[in-house]
Amino acid sequence: MKHPVHSIHHLQQVLENEIPITRRMGIRVKDYDGSQLVLEAPLAPNMNHKSTAFGGSLYSLAVLTGWGLLYLRMQELGLESHIVIFESSIIYHLPVKTDFISQCKMADEKAWRRFLAIFRRKGRAKIPLLANILTRDGLAVSFRGTYVAHV
Amino acid sequence: MKHPVHSIHHLQQVLENEIPITRRMGIRVKDYDGSQLVLEAPLAPNMNHKSTAFGGSLYSLAVLTGWGLLYLRMQELGLESHIVIFESSIIYHLPVKTDFISQCKMADEKAWRRFLAIFRRKGRAKIPLLANILTRDGLAVSFRGTYVAHV
Repeated sequence: MKHPVHSIHHLQQVLENEIPITRRMGIRVKDYDGSQLVLEAPLAPNMNHKSTAFGGSLYSLAVLTGWGLLYLRMQELGLESHIVIFESSIIYHLPVKTDFISQCKMADEKAWRRFLAIFRRKGRAKIPLLANILTRDGLAVSFRGTYVAHV
Repeated sequence: MKHPVHSIHHLQQVLENEIPITRRMGIRVKDYDGSQLVLEAPLAPNMNHKSTAFGGSLYSLAVLTGWGLLYLRMQELGLESHIVIFESSIIYHLPVKTDFISQCKMADEKAWRRFLAIFRRKGRAKIPLLANILTRDGLAVSFRGTYVAHV
């Protein structure tokens, strides 16, 4: 397994180089402990007409948190795959008035093992992941996405 | 009612000035006929690791199409309001390999009249809107968002 600090640096490079709009949004990989990934973004480049965070930027950070977690977990197992978002839903609880972070955790280890078993057998599997966007005021956004990994 | 050509120019200014990340994404207001709004975005600045459009950029274009349509319709009636996205869901049917457009239509006139009646009475109302992202290959993304307008 790669060391988490290496993973943080690696994922930062992947986001910047392969999804260049993330540079414009100022997205940073903040933390990864092998189970939970945390991304962060500054408010300024992601501001909307109400001087709060644009809903599309909040969505982008959330969808990338799930994507990044799945990417790192697959890499650690040496599994080459393409990972894409298939469908998702998002609820905006509070306006985001500050810089913000998004957290995604591999919460359901049983679902993860089932996902891996199917991926290894069929070369294609899907898994649902939850991400939360937090600010000092509390939970601002709940995101649920279904990701597909395929060889 | 404002002339649609004026509305197109006005909405373009609003997006560029008030949601600056839309400039980075190259989002353009392409068409508006009083009922349907069409936005477009180029692939290049919105590319992902697979050289197709990043799911967050597709979401952003879709959510702005609903937002922009509601904004223009409220403006035409002289109704001052703040419009925000409350919750949404999105399905990615096909990878997007070219520049892309998003369409949103005020399809349910009964829901629109009910929304207006509630907004006028309570100063706050919500309405669901559908947006579709289309490419030469067909329907690539289906989006459904619930928007809230409040005084």
